[in-house]
Amino acid sequence: KIDGDRLWESLMEMAKIGPGVAGGNNRQTLTDEDAEGRALFRKWCEDAGLAMGLDTMGNMFARREGADPDALPVYVGSHLDTQPTGGKYDGVLGVLAGLELVRTLNDLDIRTKHPIVVTNWTNEEGTRFAPAMLASGVFAGVHEEDWAKAREDAEGKNFGDELERIGWKGDEPVGARKMHAFFELHIEQGPILEAEGKDIGVVTHGQGLSWTQVTITGKDSHTGSTPMPMRRNAGLGMARVLEKVEEIALSHAPDAVGAAGHIDIYPNSRNVIPGKAVFTVDFRSPDKAVIEDMVARMKAAAQEICDDMDLGVEFEVAGGFDPVEFDEGCVTAVRNAAERLGYSHRNLVSGAGHDACWINRVAPTAMVMCPCVDGLSHNEAEEISKEWATAGAEVLMHAVVETAGI
Amino acid sequence: KIDGDRLWESLMEMAKIGPGVAGGNNRQTLTDEDAEGRALFRKWCEDAGLAMGLDTMGNMFARREGADPDALPVYVGSHLDTQPTGGKYDGVLGVLAGLELVRTLNDLDIRTKHPIVVTNWTNEEGTRFAPAMLASGVFAGVHEEDWAKAREDAEGKNFGDELERIGWKGDEPVGARKMHAFFELHIEQGPILEAEGKDIGVVTHGQGLSWTQVTITGKDSHTGSTPMPMRRNAGLGMARVLEKVEEIALSHAPDAVGAAGHIDIYPNSRNVIPGKAVFTVDFRSPDKAVIEDMVARMKAAAQEICDDMDLGVEFEVAGGFDPVEFDEGCVTAVRNAAERLGYSHRNLVSGAGHDACWINRVAPTAMVMCPCVDGLSHNEAEEISKEWATAGAEVLMHAVVETAGI
Ligand SMILES: NC(=O)NCCC(=O)O
Ligand SMILES: NC(=O)NCCC(=O)O
Repeated sequence: KIDGDRLWESLMEMAKIGPGVAGGNNRQTLTDEDAEGRALFRKWCEDAGLAMGLDTMGNMFARREGADPDALPVYVGSHLDTQPTGGKYDGVLGVLAGLELVRTLNDLDIRTKHPIVVTNWTNEEGTRFAPAMLASGVFAGVHEEDWAKAREDAEGKNFGDELERIGWKGDEPVGARKMHAFFELHIEQGPILEAEGKDIGVVTHGQGLSWTQVTITGKDSHTGSTPMPMRRNAGLGMARVLEKVEEIALSHAPDAVGAAGHIDIYPNSRNVIPGKAVFTVDFRSPDKAVIEDMVARMKAAAQEICDDMDLGVEFEVAGGFDPVEFDEGCVTAVRNAAERLGYSHRNLVSGAGHDACWINRVAPTAMVMCPCVDGLSHNEAEEISKEWATAGAEVLMHAVVETAGI
Repeated sequence: KIDGDRLWESLMEMAKIGPGVAGGNNRQTLTDEDAEGRALFRKWCEDAGLAMGLDTMGNMFARREGADPDALPVYVGSHLDTQPTGGKYDGVLGVLAGLELVRTLNDLDIRTKHPIVVTNWTNEEGTRFAPAMLASGVFAGVHEEDWAKAREDAEGKNFGDELERIGWKGDEPVGARKMHAFFELHIEQGPILEAEGKDIGVVTHGQGLSWTQVTITGKDSHTGSTPMPMRRNAGLGMARVLEKVEEIALSHAPDAVGAAGHIDIYPNSRNVIPGKAVFTVDFRSPDKAVIEDMVARMKAAAQEICDDMDLGVEFEVAGGFDPVEFDEGCVTAVRNAAERLGYSHRNLVSGAGHDACWINRVAPTAMVMCPCVDGLSHNEAEEISKEWATAGAEVLMHAVVETAGI
């Protein structure tokens, strides 16, 4: 049994760093607040007797020695960065539940055979620097490190410079570590567990994602004196594409979703017809063919809309990953843990992307999910109960300890 | 005859201040660049023997004494501020043509009966601080000065503070001056004169404008894990309203136009369903009833769309003015000048708003227009020929001198 109060206290303590405007957090990756959150996590790890490793992407690895120090460690963790208007649990729960299970093993004086490493992956959210899950992607060999370091935020600052600026670039080469297994606890971010009154989601799959950045080019001109037939309104072209995104996603319901969260208009002046619109279309499905179909249909529709309106259009891949099937052994360990502890559970497909989705490519991996209120996430009002967090952390600990051996 | 080369040289000299990224200008109101442009204009005025007045809204008044110093002056001018990606002539031509006519009168040693005052109105463009024509509106008694000073830019800086910061707040009370007449030369910003091969537009009317800021409120949530039926996507609601804006404006074609140039999405993160969309709808027509109809239909459509999508919607007036009929005597002076000088001309309704539209409420007013290439304005590629500028300035001078008397 983990100490649910201690876990909750740590969650609330971390949430004080980078407070949001409405009760949540703004602790975006590689900001001063991120640095402060990392420092607090490192202090807690040192207090728990862990040795901290840091790689050149800023990924943090806090190691608890095993009875067999040569055995590959079991990794556990998630991310401490948040959305600009994010919740207190998205990512943070998975890191601090990893810390809590170590604290519990310390209290009980239990030594596992395999070492245990609690991990904080850099830039999971992908808001400041697209794509999401950037540093776990480099770890898993999906992205080149140089490419990742060159990713720029909206102000033109790049990942590499910002990582150095906040002082959290390590020396360790990324991806050099080998893992016995990886486990990630995360809030569901969707409504299913709460609606069905289940304590635990056993995540068997993760849906795939495609981010397409669309740039529509028209012509800046005066909103008053430009006759309607002469207008090349990139904002209106965008509006028509957004309607298509909805229509295309709904055509695959309930096995797909689609939306645009990022929209920028240029020059963004009340009396200038927009000459440029840049926006990112997010399509997801557990079925890769469905994603490909949606992207292709969106591009075709956008091309047709823009041709009709004498607008230019370009597409750029801004991120993406294929649907994921987690490791059967690890998934079974999670299910067995829930069963053994007497928690109600069901299989889940993760709607969101997670660091576990990348790590699954280089190590046996599984995820544990706990409910969140109204399925709400990426919102400062994101909420969970202490009981849900405790159940999730307990299942996580049992799956980890079973896999690490005693 | 004015000196077209000297006018052109001054235009090119002013365009060096606050250069844009594509050959135009970014000399937005109350920026350091605006201050620099003002200083250059003041120097030129002093060189021409004019006495500079400055009011508490930063409006500049450069006076050439008349034979009868007690006669009310004839005012002439426009604005030196630009759009963020604006042209070199929009506004600037009207101010510098006023200066050029004074230089010409100096060269010819002509003294008019009425004094002549060359004016630069603050914040005509309205991009940084809405609404447009802000300081001429205060001068004409349309806006309260305190309200105008409290207008905020996107960063939350207000007009009053920024005016003091750049050092161009004067002591003179706004609107205290009485005018014998006001004349403004401006580029057409539309395609009619060029298409018909006319040198001069005699502006008889200005169309009216309504700016409605629309705020649609949904709910931030995860783009991956929020099921389609649970989404409250403010960005999609906005897209549907934008389509209606186009449809409503076209229903009144060719006597109306409509578009949204300003669009902001929150939190603007690729994996967050937009919880808020703020955008400004610009509707214009020479017929006030048409404007009112368009605004009412847009609001009703937006309300219906948002009700259907479980979104909130609010409307705020961000600016506007009624259609304008310019003074018959001043309009006739412009037409007579064009006729006398042998320039081809036609009557025009101004598609854009101008400081003259407000000043028309407190003094007999008219406008002169010259063509611009492809009717393009509010674009860095805005272009006119030296011949067009010269013709416009010559007609302006003759109308002013006829009105001021010799
Ligand atoms: N879990 C989570 O919100 N990850 C961000 C990446 C995504 O957009 O799915
Ligand atoms: N002339 C001009 O571009 N004025 C700006 C105000 C408007 O939007 O019409």
